[in-house]
Amino acid sequence: MKLTLDGALRMIEAAKQKAREIGTPMVIAVVDEGGNLVALERMDGALLVSVNIAWNKAYTAVALKMPTEDLSGLAQPGRPLFGIENADGGRIVIFGGGIPVLHQGHVIGGVGVSGGSVEQDVMCAQAGIKAFLPL
Amino acid sequence: MKLTLDGALRMIEAAKQKAREIGTPMVIAVVDEGGNLVALERMDGALLVSVNIAWNKAYTAVALKMPTEDLSGLAQPGRPLFGIENADGGRIVIFGGGIPVLHQGHVIGGVGVSGGSVEQDVMCAQAGIKAFLPL
Amino acid sequence: MKLTLDGALRMIEAAKQKAREIGTPMVIAVVDEGGNLVALERMDGALLVSVNIAWNKAYTAVALKMPTEDLSGLAQPGRPLFGIENADGGRIVIFGGGIPVLHQGHVIGGVGVSGGSVEQDVMCAQAGIKAFLPL
Amino acid sequence: MKLTLDGALRMIEAAKQKAREIGTPMVIAVVDEGGNLVALERMDGALLVSVNIAWNKAYTAVALKMPTEDLSGLAQPGRPLFGIENADGGRIVIFGGGIPVLHQGHVIGGVGVSGGSVEQDVMCAQAGIKAFLPL
Repeated sequence: MKLTLDGALRMIEAAKQKAREIGTPMVIAVVDEGGNLVALERMDGALLVSVNIAWNKAYTAVALKMPTEDLSGLAQPGRPLFGIENADGGRIVIFGGGIPVLHQGHVIGGVGVSGGSVEQDVMCAQAGIKAFLPL
Repeated sequence: MKLTLDGALRMIEAAKQKAREIGTPMVIAVVDEGGNLVALERMDGALLVSVNIAWNKAYTAVALKMPTEDLSGLAQPGRPLFGIENADGGRIVIFGGGIPVLHQGHVIGGVGVSGGSVEQDVMCAQAGIKAFLPL
Repeated sequence: MKLTLDGALRMIEAAKQKAREIGTPMVIAVVDEGGNLVALERMDGALLVSVNIAWNKAYTAVALKMPTEDLSGLAQPGRPLFGIENADGGRIVIFGGGIPVLHQGHVIGGVGVSGGSVEQDVMCAQAGIKAFLPL
Repeated sequence: MKLTLDGALRMIEAAKQKAREIGTPMVIAVVDEGGNLVALERMDGALLVSVNIAWNKAYTAVALKMPTEDLSGLAQPGRPLFGIENADGGRIVIFGGGIPVLHQGHVIGGVGVSGGSVEQDVMCAQAGIKAFLPL
């Protein structure tokens, strides 16, 4: 079971729909199980920085097999992964908005969203995940 | 006049349609006039290398305001721009498949395609350009 | 409405004037709405590190559409954007001295200053912004 | 004897004047003897790629203590420096437009121009060099 382009586009469409409801333009990126980009869309007016951050969130979710949200606690000063955001050439994002795509317990990809507050980004990424129905 | 996400997706759809006719999966990238990514899609089975090459072709077409095809002659040994592929941090592509998007004589973006032979990439990029109708 | 080279040089001149009053040599950078460099000047004796920091501050102000000063609170340990300085390939600066250039509510560029204390950098960047009169 | 910001701006002004005569917008960069940027200006409408190429030309002229023009012959297939454009992290430019700034036989900086044909770039860089009068 691999994540297809069609599957990625369904996730992006759902995330965009949520972004429109929120009223904030976002960038949504989807990567496959190898951490490689499948699709990315930048909504009109989205922050420029969000292209790389959305992509890196999707990568991080796959590369660490966890939501990027879960990293934020672990990466605080004094915690076990303090400094991890520097440990992979500037690709690890340690705040919410990146979520792995699971199929029967296996990580087959990741979605990353950037453009709003962290909470908004997470909501859009979750909307993307919900729209993913393996064909 | 700016290139919108909808405009970018129309170009990608047309390039994908051409890629399907050819029978070769491609990556198609669209950047805006600042060289920043607007949208990218990797068709199922497309070469992994094509993510960066498609993006860099789109970037090159904007950054040099010319089809990447036109660079290949100029960048041959003994020609004026020999070595230009190394002069911008590894982002310049000197073979066909990147074409600027023009509106009233101004470059407002670029499309880049990678995945097949250079001729196939160019055909798909041209299909993308033809589908671009400014709204 | 685009930021022109003349507009950028007016901003740089005003920032330099403020730097002379303060008595600290600075680097001043101006980028356009795509985050691409328009002009940069390093005053004699300015810190070498300030070339990249001034540039990255200007980039950050455009890429996040906010003064870099506003990021410093959000990026502290325990705050929502902790770690953002590593989320875009090392280009995000999370202390003051980068300010977006606005025209009728739209971000059309950014100015970044580095070389003194953060407060001094901010003063010079503000002097640059004040000197910007769209022609 | 060091290259000052004022000296750099005189060179840039002269190079811009030549670019206006030619009718092609250029990017002009000046670096010091350490290869570090002193000043850079992108004329309105200049190619986006020229920001990095002008800078890298100025760097190359200092780093190799020769005009970048002289490198093109040496870097051809079969010649001694074939491949040098890959040997410094993508910063070496092997076509004309970068010229070292000399003072009493010592390299104290470099000017790099990009935006037109190689010949036009060289003409503008030479105009810059001619305008340099150590104070």
